[in-house]
Amino acid sequence: MIKVYGDMQSGNCYKIKLLMSLLDIPHQWIAVDILAGETHTAGFLARNPNGKIPLLKLPNGDCLTESNAILNYLAEGTDLLPTDALARARVLQWQFFEQYSHEPYVAVARFINKYLGLPADREAEYKSKQEGGNKALAVMETQLQQSAFLAGEAFTIADISLYAYTHVAHEGGFDLSGYSAISAWLTRIQQLDGYHGMEIQE
Amino acid sequence: MIKVYGDMQSGNCYKIKLLMSLLDIPHQWIAVDILAGETHTAGFLARNPNGKIPLLKLPNGDCLTESNAILNYLAEGTDLLPTDALARARVLQWQFFEQYSHEPYVAVARFINKYLGLPADREAEYKSKQEGGNKALAVMETQLQQSAFLAGEAFTIADISLYAYTHVAHEGGFDLSGYSAISAWLTRIQQLDGYHGMEIQE
Repeated sequence: MIKVYGDMQSGNCYKIKLLMSLLDIPHQWIAVDILAGETHTAGFLARNPNGKIPLLKLPNGDCLTESNAILNYLAEGTDLLPTDALARARVLQWQFFEQYSHEPYVAVARFINKYLGLPADREAEYKSKQEGGNKALAVMETQLQQSAFLAGEAFTIADISLYAYTHVAHEGGFDLSGYSAISAWLTRIQQLDGYHGMEIQE
Repeated sequence: MIKVYGDMQSGNCYKIKLLMSLLDIPHQWIAVDILAGETHTAGFLARNPNGKIPLLKLPNGDCLTESNAILNYLAEGTDLLPTDALARARVLQWQFFEQYSHEPYVAVARFINKYLGLPADREAEYKSKQEGGNKALAVMETQLQQSAFLAGEAFTIADISLYAYTHVAHEGGFDLSGYSAISAWLTRIQQLDGYHGMEIQE
């Protein structure tokens, strides 16, 4: 059986749980505690020298890392990943946008606030994340005013990638009430068959 | 003809030039000056609301952004992008690693040093990038001690993605002399038919 090493409160890990739930893929979820250093043990580093979760371990022992690469692997051949070259690239465009222009602001602000309890020595960094996070949300809002989902009219893994941290952006201090298209999109995703909330542990 | 909006001194843009040269894809290169604000004009933002280069404009007017998404689009159907699902995901794994764990350190340190001339008010940030950059280089070195290229024995677009900023990492203060496998890999890439150096403008 496929094993997933992850933490359900991490948006990057939750992406995998949400996709597996939507596609009904049997798997074993192995909880990993980042704050306890479990991604930096010798055993874990042998599987991922970059020391990060999520990590996918296939039945033959092969390991795959990087949340969005894992989504592409698991969604291959399903409706959640188009086959046309430009449509596929459009999905990737949003996933790379997520990792470079969204996650380092929205997810890091949430980490400082929710995981670390907004300590005084990280307050300036927390505040500095707000502008970049709102810029990323504005880019998403512009697209979602034009199409039902990020890569067009069909739900794809690009939406899973951006949903993960956007739906909990308030935990990083972001107010979504001004983003009406994003708010409607969040609701559309929550109504999908097989939807799995981040608050459900297994 | 395909148009590429870019700056040859930006590694993210150079990735596209290198791939197009290796695959001999005819295109028009349109130079964009980031420091002069040319990615934030109303005309540019209409093509990419995120205000970043490179940007690919197809003959039908469709635009595609994010360097690694563009590489995937252009390499589809060639030897530089495998068809097997796990092999494709392995390429993506390295490309997402590049955007999250490599570029924000190696490329940003280089930007502060080379583009901005290492101003006093960015010196602390510049120094703070060294540890993360060396960590990313160590992860690459571990892989390249085991295989000729990042995703295995064959050259793929994953190598183009990591080559772009690694081969000029010294401009960001990184000393590659301790990374013997990376150094040998850089040489292998420079010897490929159709190789195009970053210093060549067109």
